[in-house]
Amino acid sequence: MSELKNDRFLRALLRQPVDRTPVWMMRQAGRYLPEYRATREQAGSFLDLCKNAELACEVTLQPLRRYPMDAAILFSDILTVPDALGLGLYFEEGEGPRFKKTVRSEEDLAGLNSIKAEDDLGYVMNAVRTIRRELNGQVPLIGFSGSPWTLATYMVEGGSSKDFANVKGMAYDRPELMHALLSLLADAVADYLTAQVEAGAQALQVFDTWGGSLSATGYKEYSLKYMQRVISRLPAEADGRKVPVIVFTKGGGQWLEAIAECGAQAVGLDWTTDIHSARQRVGEKVALQGNMDPAMLFASPERIRSEVEAILAGFGHGSGHVFNLGHGITPGVDPDHVTAFVDAVQELSPQYHADA
Amino acid sequence: MSELKNDRFLRALLRQPVDRTPVWMMRQAGRYLPEYRATREQAGSFLDLCKNAELACEVTLQPLRRYPMDAAILFSDILTVPDALGLGLYFEEGEGPRFKKTVRSEEDLAGLNSIKAEDDLGYVMNAVRTIRRELNGQVPLIGFSGSPWTLATYMVEGGSSKDFANVKGMAYDRPELMHALLSLLADAVADYLTAQVEAGAQALQVFDTWGGSLSATGYKEYSLKYMQRVISRLPAEADGRKVPVIVFTKGGGQWLEAIAECGAQAVGLDWTTDIHSARQRVGEKVALQGNMDPAMLFASPERIRSEVEAILAGFGHGSGHVFNLGHGITPGVDPDHVTAFVDAVQELSPQYHADA
Repeated sequence: MSELKNDRFLRALLRQPVDRTPVWMMRQAGRYLPEYRATREQAGSFLDLCKNAELACEVTLQPLRRYPMDAAILFSDILTVPDALGLGLYFEEGEGPRFKKTVRSEEDLAGLNSIKAEDDLGYVMNAVRTIRRELNGQVPLIGFSGSPWTLATYMVEGGSSKDFANVKGMAYDRPELMHALLSLLADAVADYLTAQVEAGAQALQVFDTWGGSLSATGYKEYSLKYMQRVISRLPAEADGRKVPVIVFTKGGGQWLEAIAECGAQAVGLDWTTDIHSARQRVGEKVALQGNMDPAMLFASPERIRSEVEAILAGFGHGSGHVFNLGHGITPGVDPDHVTAFVDAVQELSPQYHADA
Repeated sequence: MSELKNDRFLRALLRQPVDRTPVWMMRQAGRYLPEYRATREQAGSFLDLCKNAELACEVTLQPLRRYPMDAAILFSDILTVPDALGLGLYFEEGEGPRFKKTVRSEEDLAGLNSIKAEDDLGYVMNAVRTIRRELNGQVPLIGFSGSPWTLATYMVEGGSSKDFANVKGMAYDRPELMHALLSLLADAVADYLTAQVEAGAQALQVFDTWGGSLSATGYKEYSLKYMQRVISRLPAEADGRKVPVIVFTKGGGQWLEAIAECGAQAVGLDWTTDIHSARQRVGEKVALQGNMDPAMLFASPERIRSEVEAILAGFGHGSGHVFNLGHGITPGVDPDHVTAFVDAVQELSPQYHADA
């Protein structure tokens, strides 16, 4: 593998000195970019794009050609694992992800495929290997998965949900079944992320999109515990270098102290959490990633710049901050506003690392 | 007016001794009840139902006939004020509320009707008077409004929104225009709630449904500040009795200390906040309302009962807790599960008030 030319992102996740705050954006490869829409058109469906290593590599690299991002993230979906388990993932235009089958009983659970990520999710590993080769050491590559709880919500509901009636009904009334499903998913996700590291991922992010739908007690019992289990099974290093893990629970700001104990090197913050108090709350335990409101990218370049400045000042001096949005970038954003965002981080952050 | 026979709810909001924890449910009059669906059918549209004082009274009282709730809440919509301001509220089946016009410029703002709630929202005051008469002192009647920020989101977007691109774009780029709209709304909401009190409402709730979509700074600047302004203009008493105000920001758990300072007597908690730590955080400043996960009503009566017990124990001994869900009841809930919920609060809570 070619040598890594920019390790700012990996260093910041480990709270090692950096020259400036690294930056990337959740969903940086995606619908706001015309070149993405063109490639997507060429690929066919969204899943066809995920399963085509060359095209998945192409869209992964597209944002890096426009913006000096400090990390690339594998282009894929959070629901590849349940798809491999046999649920049949598909997408209805404008409807979000759906599954042909659901898991609502012991029988459903027993009927899931037994999988090995290297084989059954080989298309993801091909994409990882292709991207690493094409990146040629420019920046590190982030691998990812949905969290066990987040995957379970889609698997039990059969798709997105507003009220999570089925999955919460299961969690509340049939906790043994829920825990059995979550254990299975934790093992599958750990295997999946391990395979991504073996294929070349240099950092990992666990997307806990729906952890914030749980109560404080429920979050610890059904989501955090299983992310902890995933993390405990991951390889600590690859090619002699630490592979940091970022955990991102949308709506998890109230549980930050607990999340900081889960074994991840970094915690992603959504935009509702004040990053200054977040840093005080987690202390020296973890790095923080975030957390500009994605809707700020609809504002003027000047306003974006002042918000970047406020967040940098909020985190304050020293390493341990990876700049990002507080959630994925919204389709419809003007790509030039992303330029303003990334430039602002590049230009305004060095002063916070002056003694590095 | 007839004498109030059950003032447990009002006393708990003022943290005065009670014999047991009072209970009601957000959206307790609504789609989960077959008798509601029958009346709704009879009325025509949802708005026709809101505007018909006799039928609005009927659906307000329906849950009280089934369950020994300690409060009734006016049946109405949170968007009546923007409708009166001239935006033309309507509902598309399965789509949520929509407005015919939006407010996105100084001209739009200047074009809004100048309103007086007693006249322009007279149908609401008729409903309040009718309900008070029919309640005949059984339990107190809660009046309500959407918060200025929440109303503004619908007025700028023209309906519900996933990303709040327009309203946040306005807040971030044209703060003067946003503040002018919010000031106008704060005044209109204060006038509206005052008229409800004059018509007979004995407590008030401000629904800040979308405050939680803002950043920590944005919340204080665009939502909390204007709720504070509303509350400062409300009559403190009616008929010689204090009229307590409850503020409910969904997703506001991180900002509890600030919310407790806004002048309201009580703060509503959604189910993501641990009520034990919430009580420690607000101290003697306010009462708390909440906060069972509405999805718990999909679980078994036994599980519902154990959750009620856990929340009662979490709040602990003494007055200052109004039991409720952490959000409105979900359509599709079995009405018998509500019985289990209300019975559990009635039966299990007296021990927490033993020295009252």
